Amino acid sequence: METLLHILDIFGIAVFAISGALAAGKKRMDLFGVVVLASVTAMGGGTLRDIILDVGPVFWVTNPTYLIVAVAAAVATFFTVRLFSLPPTLLAIADAIGLAVFTILGTEKALAVGMPAVIAVVMGVITGVVGGMIRDVLSGEMPLILRSELYATASFCGAIILTLTISKLQAREIAVLASLIVTLALRLSAIKWKISLPLMSRDKGA
Amino acid sequence: METLLHILDIFGIAVFAISGALAAGKKRMDLFGVVVLASVTAMGGGTLRDIILDVGPVFWVTNPTYLIVAVAAAVATFFTVRLFSLPPTLLAIADAIGLAVFTILGTEKALAVGMPAVIAVVMGVITGVVGGMIRDVLSGEMPLILRSELYATASFCGAIILTLTISKLQAREIAVLASLIVTLALRLSAIKWKISLPLMSRDKGA
Amino acid sequence: METLLHILDIFGIAVFAISGALAAGKKRMDLFGVVVLASVTAMGGGTLRDIILDVGPVFWVTNPTYLIVAVAAAVATFFTVRLFSLPPTLLAIADAIGLAVFTILGTEKALAVGMPAVIAVVMGVITGVVGGMIRDVLSGEMPLILRSELYATASFCGAIILTLTISKLQAREIAVLASLIVTLALRLSAIKWKISLPLMSRDKGA
Repeated sequence: METLLHILDIFGIAVFAISGALAAGKKRMDLFGVVVLASVTAMGGGTLRDIILDVGPVFWVTNPTYLIVAVAAAVATFFTVRLFSLPPTLLAIADAIGLAVFTILGTEKALAVGMPAVIAVVMGVITGVVGGMIRDVLSGEMPLILRSELYATASFCGAIILTLTISKLQAREIAVLASLIVTLALRLSAIKWKISLPLMSRDKGA
Repeated sequence: METLLHILDIFGIAVFAISGALAAGKKRMDLFGVVVLASVTAMGGGTLRDIILDVGPVFWVTNPTYLIVAVAAAVATFFTVRLFSLPPTLLAIADAIGLAVFTILGTEKALAVGMPAVIAVVMGVITGVVGGMIRDVLSGEMPLILRSELYATASFCGAIILTLTISKLQAREIAVLASLIVTLALRLSAIKWKISLPLMSRDKGA
Repeated sequence: METLLHILDIFGIAVFAISGALAAGKKRMDLFGVVVLASVTAMGGGTLRDIILDVGPVFWVTNPTYLIVAVAAAVATFFTVRLFSLPPTLLAIADAIGLAVFTILGTEKALAVGMPAVIAVVMGVITGVVGGMIRDVLSGEMPLILRSELYATASFCGAIILTLTISKLQAREIAVLASLIVTLALRLSAIKWKISLPLMSRDKGA
């Protein structure tokens, strides 16, 4: 399980870096801009989580492997995007896996340093969604998370499932798996059937 | 006084959360987007203050009550805004009270950990205005604080009054009250009579 | 050398504050907006570096001189810009010097607290470019660093040169000088001859 989560963690970094690099490509940035935007997307959430928890230097300072993976994924995207394009469906699925894994890692890290359940859930969501928010702000878009199909909601539900079950079950594996499935199922259904929460609006006609 | 400030603190969190939720409503966000934008507005300033001062986990991690109040205020706003709308004047007054209270709490926290006067003033202003800045950036608006009627200036004057008087007077109550009145008076007069500082401009005709 | 770097450091703060104040002027902000945007531009990079490294309160809290210099430069810009305008070339050269100096100071601070080379380089770049990024986001522009002429690339090369040579040479002066020259040369040539890295693009015609 530890090994699987670690592999998924590296996978999540790479996937989010690719999504950041593709967003950079739309804005006609140069190689360095692409690397910066990809790195911020991949590591922004975990960075904010570590800063808020105040548990020493942030994760990629302690272990630069993450940084190297993000940069490598960004550079690879930069050069391969001219040759062939990734199918959007594949990318959306990969992104959903990244979201689910980051949510689990963020929630677990908060619980590991003794945080109460409500904070652990918030840290899971922050780890999952903040990287994408910074990506959108830096590339001049309205943050996807604030308008889109159950993105943060899926992360939120995954974090709650993990927090509730991990203490009760005494079986971390099952809790982690349940969280992973819930986040993935919610996010992927929302993409497939264009589900979203009701919008806030004063006029009924809109 | 302690109790009054604590009540006003919770009140400030709720008021800023409502202002964030209303901003989210204008952008047609869903429930989760509203909660996120409201929470960031209510707690962004204090979070940045605590991160910069590096005094352990930020305030809402230590005491999740703030988080719960912000989320509750956001959810309540989401559902009631369809039924009836808050009068803008009431909201502007409530927002000014929040600004005044947050300025006091930020300044006091910095002084309490032994910061010099100049840093205490900056921390008061950061606590008062940063939440609204992040709200504006995330919802794609030019930050209000950078252009509007004595918003940050009122916070700045309130923080200076508090810093100057709290050490001289030996009477915390009077210092806090003086700061509260100065910030409120400046901000509310600015709204009523549309006062602003002179703008920076090269052309005299503009 | 220590004295020279300290003078250049203060110089860098002032130069970046002026560039922030000029950006604020374009958006017709008032005096306080100008001071805020100038301060964020001048100190944003170093602030993020110190927060990520988690080495106690950030530099301008420990030593408020930086804050005072930034505010003074912003106020001076606010009042003099009506009387006469700075030649853009002079400003671009001053900005390049600021970039080079901040890159050196960021890289050195990370090495001083025992960070590995790869992190030191990232910290150099963050210190050099993040202030300008926040300035652009707050004033509603697409960040310059993500699109422009070797801005971050120059900082990156300067940080690498410093990191590589400072451990090998045992002569800090030469390493610092080499880094300064590389960053300046790259950035100034890029401005003069409009050099940039290749852009990311799928269509060859664009």
